[in-house]
Amino acid sequence: MAHPGTHSPRLWVWLLLVVVSRTAEPVCGVWPLPQQIHQSPDRYSLSPQLFSFTYGKDSAAQTGCSVLDAAFKRYFSIIFPDFTKGPENGLRYWSESKPFVVSVSVKSRGCDGYPGEDSDESYNLSVSEGQAVLRSVTVWGSLRGLESFSQLVYQDDYGSYFLNKTEIVDFPRFAFRGLLLDTSRHYLPLHAILKTLDAMAYSKLNVFHWHIVDDPSFPYQSRTFPDLSNKGAFHPFTHIYTQSDVMRVIEHARMRGIRVVPEFDSPGHTQSWGKGQPDLLTPCYRGDVPSGSFGPVDPTVDTTYKFMERLLKEVKYVFPDSYVHLGGDEVSFACWQSNPNVLKFMGKMGFGKDFTKLESFYMESIMNMTAALNKTSIVWQDVFDYRERPRAKYVVEVWKQGCYLCEMRRVTKAGLKVILAAPFYLDLPIPTHSWARYYIVRPLAFKGTEEQKKLVIGGEVAMWGEYVDATNLSPRLWPRACAAAERLWSDEEKTLNADLAFPRLEEFRCELLRRGVQAEPLFVGHCKHEYNGL
Amino acid sequence: MAHPGTHSPRLWVWLLLVVVSRTAEPVCGVWPLPQQIHQSPDRYSLSPQLFSFTYGKDSAAQTGCSVLDAAFKRYFSIIFPDFTKGPENGLRYWSESKPFVVSVSVKSRGCDGYPGEDSDESYNLSVSEGQAVLRSVTVWGSLRGLESFSQLVYQDDYGSYFLNKTEIVDFPRFAFRGLLLDTSRHYLPLHAILKTLDAMAYSKLNVFHWHIVDDPSFPYQSRTFPDLSNKGAFHPFTHIYTQSDVMRVIEHARMRGIRVVPEFDSPGHTQSWGKGQPDLLTPCYRGDVPSGSFGPVDPTVDTTYKFMERLLKEVKYVFPDSYVHLGGDEVSFACWQSNPNVLKFMGKMGFGKDFTKLESFYMESIMNMTAALNKTSIVWQDVFDYRERPRAKYVVEVWKQGCYLCEMRRVTKAGLKVILAAPFYLDLPIPTHSWARYYIVRPLAFKGTEEQKKLVIGGEVAMWGEYVDATNLSPRLWPRACAAAERLWSDEEKTLNADLAFPRLEEFRCELLRRGVQAEPLFVGHCKHEYNGL
Repeated sequence: MAHPGTHSPRLWVWLLLVVVSRTAEPVCGVWPLPQQIHQSPDRYSLSPQLFSFTYGKDSAAQTGCSVLDAAFKRYFSIIFPDFTKGPENGLRYWSESKPFVVSVSVKSRGCDGYPGEDSDESYNLSVSEGQAVLRSVTVWGSLRGLESFSQLVYQDDYGSYFLNKTEIVDFPRFAFRGLLLDTSRHYLPLHAILKTLDAMAYSKLNVFHWHIVDDPSFPYQSRTFPDLSNKGAFHPFTHIYTQSDVMRVIEHARMRGIRVVPEFDSPGHTQSWGKGQPDLLTPCYRGDVPSGSFGPVDPTVDTTYKFMERLLKEVKYVFPDSYVHLGGDEVSFACWQSNPNVLKFMGKMGFGKDFTKLESFYMESIMNMTAALNKTSIVWQDVFDYRERPRAKYVVEVWKQGCYLCEMRRVTKAGLKVILAAPFYLDLPIPTHSWARYYIVRPLAFKGTEEQKKLVIGGEVAMWGEYVDATNLSPRLWPRACAAAERLWSDEEKTLNADLAFPRLEEFRCELLRRGVQAEPLFVGHCKHEYNGL
Repeated sequence: MAHPGTHSPRLWVWLLLVVVSRTAEPVCGVWPLPQQIHQSPDRYSLSPQLFSFTYGKDSAAQTGCSVLDAAFKRYFSIIFPDFTKGPENGLRYWSESKPFVVSVSVKSRGCDGYPGEDSDESYNLSVSEGQAVLRSVTVWGSLRGLESFSQLVYQDDYGSYFLNKTEIVDFPRFAFRGLLLDTSRHYLPLHAILKTLDAMAYSKLNVFHWHIVDDPSFPYQSRTFPDLSNKGAFHPFTHIYTQSDVMRVIEHARMRGIRVVPEFDSPGHTQSWGKGQPDLLTPCYRGDVPSGSFGPVDPTVDTTYKFMERLLKEVKYVFPDSYVHLGGDEVSFACWQSNPNVLKFMGKMGFGKDFTKLESFYMESIMNMTAALNKTSIVWQDVFDYRERPRAKYVVEVWKQGCYLCEMRRVTKAGLKVILAAPFYLDLPIPTHSWARYYIVRPLAFKGTEEQKKLVIGGEVAMWGEYVDATNLSPRLWPRACAAAERLWSDEEKTLNADLAFPRLEEFRCELLRRGVQAEPLFVGHCKHEYNGL
């Protein structure tokens, strides 16, 4: 095959492992690995004709529960993709098939709410002859349980459906299991976002971090400041997210138990903002005169704060989640340094020549606004690094390579919550098997108290947009993001071995193909249902 | 944007360049760059209603020419994608529009033949008011000219079509401009192959090297040996290429002036062959007893040569191209070494312990068969490396990294034709801008005579299948393969600068999106018509 240097010995070991594990014992069919799962060889056949979802008698949620009614419909099609005909086809199915009922019981109703930072996602699932009993505290827990249930069902070579006697006790290791999409460097059509949310739910990821605007474009159509997208989007009609688009994303996510956390990154990364909001950015100077180019948001003028307050008020209204991401990363100080008004302001405030103080001043101002709107701010670690003793409470997202555990230790020592993104950057095209390195990430392996460890609320895979748009988003995300998802959901001790994960991830990737997700292959081989979406 | 280490300074230079080049002078709209192109600011408007292709009066090909009739139909839809309604819509178009006729004249007919190694692909295209005159020696040259013509047409912001006064004199630098797909490590559905052929034609690539079988699977359904795919394919019905599939690929390729060169790689890379042809592979030994595993094809028994002769006869019959690729790469000698019958044969033949002699013996035997069938053999460079003084004439494909130019020098010195693949391996996921390195490849930059240089017949981009299937094939191929295509078609001196190519490739990539090719982005930005195929 004339192909140098791609067969690392490690991969052959894996390949061997696949063969071995496939003959030795059945592969566990649920991804991410549940906290506890016991399966027996006893199997029951399922017939779509005689299959139903129902609410348990003691369930707080009953028919009419928007989230679960929709989930029943969705999972029926996922479990029985071939079942497109009406009941007149019933005769095709073996008369020996027996009814099978999945009974779902929820403790607290909450069908019309949104998943949040404290949502209980735990569930218990018990599959026995003729029935499965799914119990959870919230509807979000039921969604996770239905996902697991759907993965238990399989087809034999004749197309008949089966599942095995199974007991699952499950809950997530971390409450925050995020995925970042960047819709500024390239515009992502709405359906690309919706399909990503579908696949997130299959992997039990639960936060969509929408990095919606940045330097290159401002696709968010603001009702308060329509010029931001009119002038700052790649195109004012075709490359924007209308209010109705945003609502569709939020509702699609809610139905899958996924939070939508928007990011309006400032004061840097705001070049596109300046097009529709003329006095917002700092004019850069060359000598004594403005150079014509602009730097970060101007933190020295009142109009900036009035603008940010109105924008954040709109964001609060549009995005129901209690978190909002305020960015704060990678601010270049060169432009501020060149501007005489900024220098005057620095002197007046006693900042000397320390521009990190100026950025901290700005970030604290907008974090205070956010707090006044009853929202929790997330910021990139830069903000914490500039001022390790924060006045306000906020969540820090760790993104810098290097010793990210050191940073986690410092942040939690300061009493702040933290989200780990650094080891989960997957926008760059690296070999598919790079997913294996997620299996050595141990977010809590820093020196610190129990209290500190509790402040680690989760992690996030980041898909930046420099080289990514709708043409390559899906294969670059999936199945690699699934590996991160497992590490954030499952018991760390049971999922430390990438070699053991390999055959399971291969199987899960085939399941993703069957569900229409354009997930790329891990290595040589095939799936029964290949990708057919071309 | 919290994104470390991805912005190489080089890329910012490019970005700057895009801005500059877009304002300074119009970007040349034809990819790959024609040998000579002169464009004037005079532009003519086009109306689909008043547009037509026709055959020149002096043309050897006239209506009824299968290749060109189909090309006229195809390119009309490519040029006017919005024109789906009937003539009753004519009123929408400006009454001031004038008729425009593309007149195509071919010297020699050959409409029902196949493109081959000696096909003349040159063409002249002259666009002036109301008409374009396209002249070529063969219909394959006309296809290249129609492609260039289609790329000259553009739409303004109101949707009106225009093209500028243009003169093009064009011909390929190399006759062999290949693309390898590997359908053994992963099965590629037929439509993935057909779509690849479409995009090849857009880039003027002209050889589809079909690495159809290999160790993991044997998807080619042989009429002589049906068990090869029955037992050696991933699945005997869903994961095979029937005779009719193969015919469809060849005809789809012919219509686009693309040759189909199949590869039946042996004696190594044949594990899947052994499943359906029991005595073909060498039984490996552990001590005195067969270990149960098998090595390369057994070159010591008559049955092997009888089998290969019958298989190659079928291949000759099924694939019309004059070339057939026989592989010959990466043969591991361990199994031969373990087998007492092979050792006995080695002694009898006087090969001593030099297994390269055994491989040469085998390869020469099957190359002789191929020659007797009037076909030219291509082999991987390993075959040449083992025996630098060949008895037969064959084409060598250089694939090993390192000093590939040294190898080219040696091969051409031995009087053999050579194809360069080494620097064009693009199956591994590397950053998109890795296409830029194709711009430093100079296939003729070795010491040698003019005669030697003429033996370099072209190059080939190789998309191996370890990590690639239908989910990620297109974005990994396109637009990177376009860069290789330009380097193989265009004047080397005019296309040495990747920075100058960048804005042109960006524009061509948008054109590929408009034509439905899932081509990934080069960098931050957008296209008027984004990919909409999800």
